[in-house]
Amino acid sequence: MAVYTDVQAEALKAFLASYDLGPLVSFKGIAQGVENSNFLVQCEKGLFILTLYEKRVEQQDLPFFIHVMDHLAQQGLTCPQPIKNRTGQVLGTLSERPACLVSFLKGTEAHDLLPFHCEAAGNILAQIHLLGKNFPFQRKNPLSLEGWNHLAQLINTFPRLEASLPLPSLQTLITDELLFLQKAWPEKGLPQGLIHADLFPDNVLFLKNSLSGVLDFYFSCTDFLAYDVAIGLNAWCFEPDGSFNLLKGKAFLNAYHKERPLTPLEVQVLPLLARGAALRFLLTRSFDWLHTSPDALVHRKDPKEYFDKLRFHQKAPTSLSYGFSL
Amino acid sequence: MAVYTDVQAEALKAFLASYDLGPLVSFKGIAQGVENSNFLVQCEKGLFILTLYEKRVEQQDLPFFIHVMDHLAQQGLTCPQPIKNRTGQVLGTLSERPACLVSFLKGTEAHDLLPFHCEAAGNILAQIHLLGKNFPFQRKNPLSLEGWNHLAQLINTFPRLEASLPLPSLQTLITDELLFLQKAWPEKGLPQGLIHADLFPDNVLFLKNSLSGVLDFYFSCTDFLAYDVAIGLNAWCFEPDGSFNLLKGKAFLNAYHKERPLTPLEVQVLPLLARGAALRFLLTRSFDWLHTSPDALVHRKDPKEYFDKLRFHQKAPTSLSYGFSL
Repeated sequence: MAVYTDVQAEALKAFLASYDLGPLVSFKGIAQGVENSNFLVQCEKGLFILTLYEKRVEQQDLPFFIHVMDHLAQQGLTCPQPIKNRTGQVLGTLSERPACLVSFLKGTEAHDLLPFHCEAAGNILAQIHLLGKNFPFQRKNPLSLEGWNHLAQLINTFPRLEASLPLPSLQTLITDELLFLQKAWPEKGLPQGLIHADLFPDNVLFLKNSLSGVLDFYFSCTDFLAYDVAIGLNAWCFEPDGSFNLLKGKAFLNAYHKERPLTPLEVQVLPLLARGAALRFLLTRSFDWLHTSPDALVHRKDPKEYFDKLRFHQKAPTSLSYGFSL
Repeated sequence: MAVYTDVQAEALKAFLASYDLGPLVSFKGIAQGVENSNFLVQCEKGLFILTLYEKRVEQQDLPFFIHVMDHLAQQGLTCPQPIKNRTGQVLGTLSERPACLVSFLKGTEAHDLLPFHCEAAGNILAQIHLLGKNFPFQRKNPLSLEGWNHLAQLINTFPRLEASLPLPSLQTLITDELLFLQKAWPEKGLPQGLIHADLFPDNVLFLKNSLSGVLDFYFSCTDFLAYDVAIGLNAWCFEPDGSFNLLKGKAFLNAYHKERPLTPLEVQVLPLLARGAALRFLLTRSFDWLHTSPDALVHRKDPKEYFDKLRFHQKAPTSLSYGFSL
């Protein structure tokens, strides 16, 4: 949670002068997002979110992410709609950073998840996949097998790893799992397309118990649609105590399946994809854990959560283990 | 700039249930304020600022600060208005912190200050002092002579001070100035009352070139009114290059004087009070500089600015040096 770049009112007014949003009324840096600086901007014509992209986001990927939001919002998905300025541009420059203004979405994230939240998440994920069918751009997923392999090497060779991240036999778990997934990971036969790749509860807004928005498309890419389902299973269907909640799994998967029916092969490989998804978050969280000071204001997410989830999936024989029913 | 305490939507909804503001629509942690956690809260009835008070603010002082805002807002000053819940309470508890909801003020802070900004600041400061006349509570200023003395000792005995804060002869400057002020500081004869004590440009909002709000009453206390003027002179009338801008001084002082005429004694001792004000910020900034890691996300303000201002005031013979004219 941070604002890395300061924006002054005068600079923001100059930036807004090229938009048709009326005069600036107020703006506040908001403590949201780890990668970028975000501001809530109030203009005469309403509320907007301004994002300044910091170095961690690859600048060449920004047009892809912005096109994703634009494509989905244009087709009615409740996601941030990039705002065009008078010359039709959505990506500008402010405080020497690439900057984009998007529509503000009402709603708050849910913390005490109930099955109806999971149902809504499964439904919206399927909608993203269906609306993504005619999305004309591709982006390779940098956090798939190749990226995992790279992260695994960095983690497994970290000096005094066990002192910094005391998870029993972490190196062995990572090495063995990678070997397994490299052999077993499907190469074809699964529908591919636009995936969100980070549909966690903190990226979904609810208003009066209805889903009101999907945020943060900065991991979106082209990959197996069912891999996105596997990420969602990990993110939405476990309890805080680490146990898998079959009711939530059932709600999430069946809501997805109702909107976009899973193919028989997708159903079959779901446990495998769920292992890959758990490994992906185990690796990125471990890497971030090792490279973030414990007293930094940026909150470190505990890798143990995904260490445990990965071991759960290793024992899940079929999609029935997640509550899926045809 | 930080949000120290996490608030979850469910907890905030429960907190808001005792207010007449309608359902929660959205909320964002905002990167504002160093001492407390602030959230922009959107309810059906509008926008509000929620503050959770962290440990650095003395809890026993909270009712004073909240009464100050309430008193001034009730009399029409554009400052945050504490919001009462249905039982008339303004101070509640959220996430185990004292919490207060206040009205949201439109406007943005000015960075490229022009004389008209200083004029508006001088005017509003006088309004605060006039409206404060019938304020029934007192609070001793913890950052006056006694507090300065305490801070000076902590700074002057800091291990390897010069390596951490390389300002030439800082210890001598502080020691000599304190000795001088302890002898020269007025004991009586100056009007006392409610002062803001921190009227910096980042605590004043402007909308379309008019002052639209005064924020942050968390240093407010009872002290010489002219000392508040001296703080304002320091905060509003110097250029970024360190030079004093006579046009701004004139605009600030004359706008104040027009609203609340300075007494002859106040005019006479203004250079002395300005030295005290400069020392106060030199001391607090030095202390914070020494106790904040350079890579902390909380921005350290450079003490050198007030080191230079103090030396300027030491050479200012009369209020005329600041552009004041009767």
